Order: sequence, then C-alpha cells, then structure tokens
Amino acid sequence: MEISLMKELVFGHKNPDTDAIVAAKAFSYLENKLGADTEAVALGEPNEETKFVLDHFDEPAPRVISNAKDEVEAVMLVDHNEAQQSVDDIDQVQVTHVVDHHRIANFETAAPLFYHAEPLGCCSTIIYKLFKQNEVEVPAKLAGLMLSAIVSDTLLFKSPTTTPQDEKAVKELAKIAGVDYETYGLDMLKAGTNLGSKTEEELITSDAKSFEMGGKTVRIDQVNTVDLDEVFAREDALRAAIEKQNQEKGYDLFLLMVTNILNSDTRLLVIGEPQEAVSKAFDVKIVDNKVDLPGVVSRKKQVVPPLEKAF
Amino acid sequence: MEISLMKELVFGHKNPDTDAIVAAKAFSYLENKLGADTEAVALGEPNEETKFVLDHFDEPAPRVISNAKDEVEAVMLVDHNEAQQSVDDIDQVQVTHVVDHHRIANFETAAPLFYHAEPLGCCSTIIYKLFKQNEVEVPAKLAGLMLSAIVSDTLLFKSPTTTPQDEKAVKELAKIAGVDYETYGLDMLKAGTNLGSKTEEELITSDAKSFEMGGKTVRIDQVNTVDLDEVFAREDALRAAIEKQNQEKGYDLFLLMVTNILNSDTRLLVIGEPQEAVSKAFDVKIVDNKVDLPGVVSRKKQVVPPLEKAF
Repeated sequence: MEISLMKELVFGHKNPDTDAIVAAKAFSYLENKLGADTEAVALGEPNEETKFVLDHFDEPAPRVISNAKDEVEAVMLVDHNEAQQSVDDIDQVQVTHVVDHHRIANFETAAPLFYHAEPLGCCSTIIYKLFKQNEVEVPAKLAGLMLSAIVSDTLLFKSPTTTPQDEKAVKELAKIAGVDYETYGLDMLKAGTNLGSKTEEELITSDAKSFEMGGKTVRIDQVNTVDLDEVFAREDALRAAIEKQNQEKGYDLFLLMVTNILNSDTRLLVIGEPQEAVSKAFDVKIVDNKVDLPGVVSRKKQVVPPLEKAF
Repeated sequence: MEISLMKELVFGHKNPDTDAIVAAKAFSYLENKLGADTEAVALGEPNEETKFVLDHFDEPAPRVISNAKDEVEAVMLVDHNEAQQSVDDIDQVQVTHVVDHHRIANFETAAPLFYHAEPLGCCSTIIYKLFKQNEVEVPAKLAGLMLSAIVSDTLLFKSPTTTPQDEKAVKELAKIAGVDYETYGLDMLKAGTNLGSKTEEELITSDAKSFEMGGKTVRIDQVNTVDLDEVFAREDALRAAIEKQNQEKGYDLFLLMVTNILNSDTRLLVIGEPQEAVSKAFDVKIVDNKVDLPGVVSRKKQVVPPLEKAF
C-alpha cells in the first residue's frame, strides 16, 4: 500500500465500543468538512451493541487496521490517548489531533498538536461541541450514531460520568435524528448485553483495556448485563480464561467488572496480584476473589482513579 | 497557610516569559467569569520584556509561588505541561485544566481533565478563542496584555510558529486595547533585549527550559538580541557559566540560542554531550561549539522536534 503524505487515519481505542467507532466517524466527517483528508477506521470489529447501532442507522462498519505507518504518516486519535490502547505502531506515526475524555497517560509527542479533552461522559459529546464551534451541521444519520455513543457511554445518563452537557447533546441530536432516545437507547443497551452467545474468552476481551500502574500491568474489562447471576453461573470458566490470559499476555492483575445496567451495581472478579491494591482502592474485603461495588458503573471515573491512587 | 479545597492556582512555566505570565492572568480571569475560584500566580519573577508590558498597562506582577500543595489541592496549567517545567510539587496536586501550545510529554493525570492545546504561535491566542467561545468580553487592559504575549511569542509575526489565527487575534485585541501593535510591539521586543545589564548567569537562565530526550537532560535557553556580536563578545564567560550550571544541575547538553530578532537568525552555542545529536538534528558541522542556523527563531518548532528526532 502506498504511504499517503496528506491523508490521515482517525481511530478510537482497541476493543472498540460504540463511542470509539462513532467518535472516529464523527471527527473524520468534521475534519473533512474543515478541509482535511481523513478516513475513519477502527482497531477491531464492532461489538454486539455497536452492530445494533450500525444496523439501525444503516451505516457500514469501519475498515479494521492493525498498522498505521504502512498507509499514512499522521493520525488522529479519538476516545483514547494511552499508547497501549492505540494502534501497535503508534510511536512510528505523528499524532496531529486528539479528542478524548479520559485521563492523559503514557502519551508523548515530539511536536505541538491539537488536543481537546474535557471531563464529559462521552467523546462524541465533545465532538458535537466542535461541530457547533465550527458551525458545521450534523447530518441526521450521524446524529443518530452520536446519540447512540453518548447513551452507551453514560448508560442512558445513569453513569456518574454523565454531565448536563451529555444530556443536552443527546436531546439535541435526537431531534436532528428523529429518534425517541429513551426507547431506542434501552433497546440498544440490551442488545449489548446479549452475553449468552459469547465465549468466556470473548467476555473477558471485548471491552478490556490495559493500564500501567506502579510498574504493574492492570487489565480491566467491563461486561454489561441485566442479570448478574447469569454471568456468575459461568464463574469457573471465566476464572480459567482470565488466568490463562494473565499468563499468556503478562497481565499482573485482571479486574472483570460485571455491571448491572438496570440498577447500576458492579460485581468485581479480581484475578492476579496485588489483590491488596483493590481492597485498598475501594476499602473493601475481597472474598474468594469477588467483591460487590454498589453504585459503581464507570471504569474511568470510579475504578481507575482509586486504583491508581492505591498503587 | 490554609489549604483551599475549592480555590485553584493558575500558572505558566518556570522562567516565565510574557506569555506564561499573561496566559495565567487571562485564563484565571476567564475561569472566574465562568464560576471558578482561581488566582493567577507565577513560578518566577517577570523578565525585562514582561516588566515593560506590565508597566505599560499598569498591571501588577503576579505573586510568585514555589509550592502549590500547601495552598490548594488543584491547579490549572497554561503555556506548559511537562513536569520539569512546572511547579516542583506538581505530582502532589490535581491538574484540572491545561491550555497549551506545546508538544505533550512527561505529563500524566489520574483522572480526566480539561486539556485544550492547539499548534498556534501563542497560548494567549488559544485563550482568546476560549473567551469568544464562551462569549466572555475581554477588558481593554487584558486585551493589551494578551496582544503583548502574542507579539512576544511570534516575534511580531516573524517566527515560523505564527499562524493566521495569531495575527487575527493581535489585530482584534489591538482594537479593544486601543494600541498601535506594530510600534508598541517593536518597543516591547527591544525592551526584552536589554542584555548589557544582565550577568552571564542570568542570560543562560532567564528563558531556559529542560527537556528529557533519549535519557539525557537537555537544557535549551534562548536570548533575543538586535546584535549577535554584542552577546558573543562575552562568549568565554557564557561558556564558563554554562559549564558550571551543567555540572551543578546535571544537564547533559546545553544549547544557548542567541537569536537576532531583526533578521530572524540564530547562532547556537552548544556545551555538553552528545554534540553529534545537534549536528545530526540540523545537518550541520559544529565548529568550536558554535553553529549558525539562518532562519531559525523558534525553539519549539525549529529546535526541539529535530533534536528529539536525532536522539
């Protein structure tokens, strides 16, 4: 493939969720309207929820890449910045733009860049604000995709990461898209909890992210469900799959967050060491590698910061 | 001093230049208008140029701090992000906001934050855009300070870091401030080149920044002048002062950029190792620790990136 000197790829994090896929499409659309030459791609296949969204709005899934430097010299990141969550050869291309709503870590550039982060519930909310600032209209289909991403990241405004700006964006985008966001949103979230069809390997991989904390590699995955017991009926097989992955991939500590999206509680399965970091982070006792965290639904806001502090 | 749980300090980098001082004042003013409780402070005394600016607009110099955590739990950074350019205890406070126009490096947070960077010539240009986005009026005096910062960072639009947005901002701010920016700007730049009154120690310190590159600590200082020969008449004393500082502070490599602001050329004095990194970065031969770099005036855009690449 020829390397383009002008074209840039836009993508979200590995194990893409709906926001990672949609934010890339939305930011690519905006940048192209502003004169850039970009293509939205993804670092993995869409998950069940995202497939439901793409089907609903009749939008194709983005092309999946595993390498950037063979195609382009520069890239734009959405919904992430940490190198281990990005394309494998991220250190060999220039990052010219980042739009994100996460902490900043393990990220470095040689030159100045455009970096726009805000502590909002969803990256697509920030991109919606950028559309407004630049006075670019959001097409109806893209509005539907963007509101899906915000509903997904905020669990229909139940997550504590939700801000008034996220709610406002969903309501405005719903008008543009002509969508009843409450009915549609719940259908979409339920589509993402169709766990019966997934292997244990898929369950512990599909929304997992890696973090470097105190010299350890911490892997945190989140599975949304409407029935905790259904997931923990498979606990033995899940433990075995996690132990295998810890060994093969060199993760020191694996946290599987199983989150009930109806009542906003999480049961944590903790495999690996140091377990004390988890006890300390949440001031809880871990019994048989498990602990209930009532009211915890956000990895970014309620799990990573206290864990980081405990390390 | 009591630690405030609400109030935040806003500051620019160590060895503050006009933009570091002014951007802190401007962003603090904006954030307070938006409901925050902030105070603009500085990590050092104003330099000659900044003194001229503050005198001209009858604005007091900001309070100088050497520590943040004794006063506040959270801070906002302007015009920098790298830890070694920030307050010494930056790792012990939360960074909630960054507005900057530099590369991102050696910067990490535990939680999501507001981070707004653009590759523009001056941080104050970005802050001016934020005033507009938030529909907050810029008072006449602050407009004068902000246009001074932009003229300073862009050397009256001669620096290659200058963008059309910087020029537009200066022209709009000049109208608000009622200032002839060209006449005033040249007077201001000349005030900053009053080198005769400075010791060698002051010359190699006042605008110096540290960078980590390939495991080495690289110190880069810039001195603006209207007469290169006047500065290099003091070369022996400058060399001695740099060698002393390299030893005392542990700098591996020291680059003194002596920049003629009238014709936009730089003569580089290179003390320490590896000298080859500098030869390689600029594809030049260093003779007797010196090399001329015609057309080079920007540390950020023309010196740091090629040097980083060479390391």
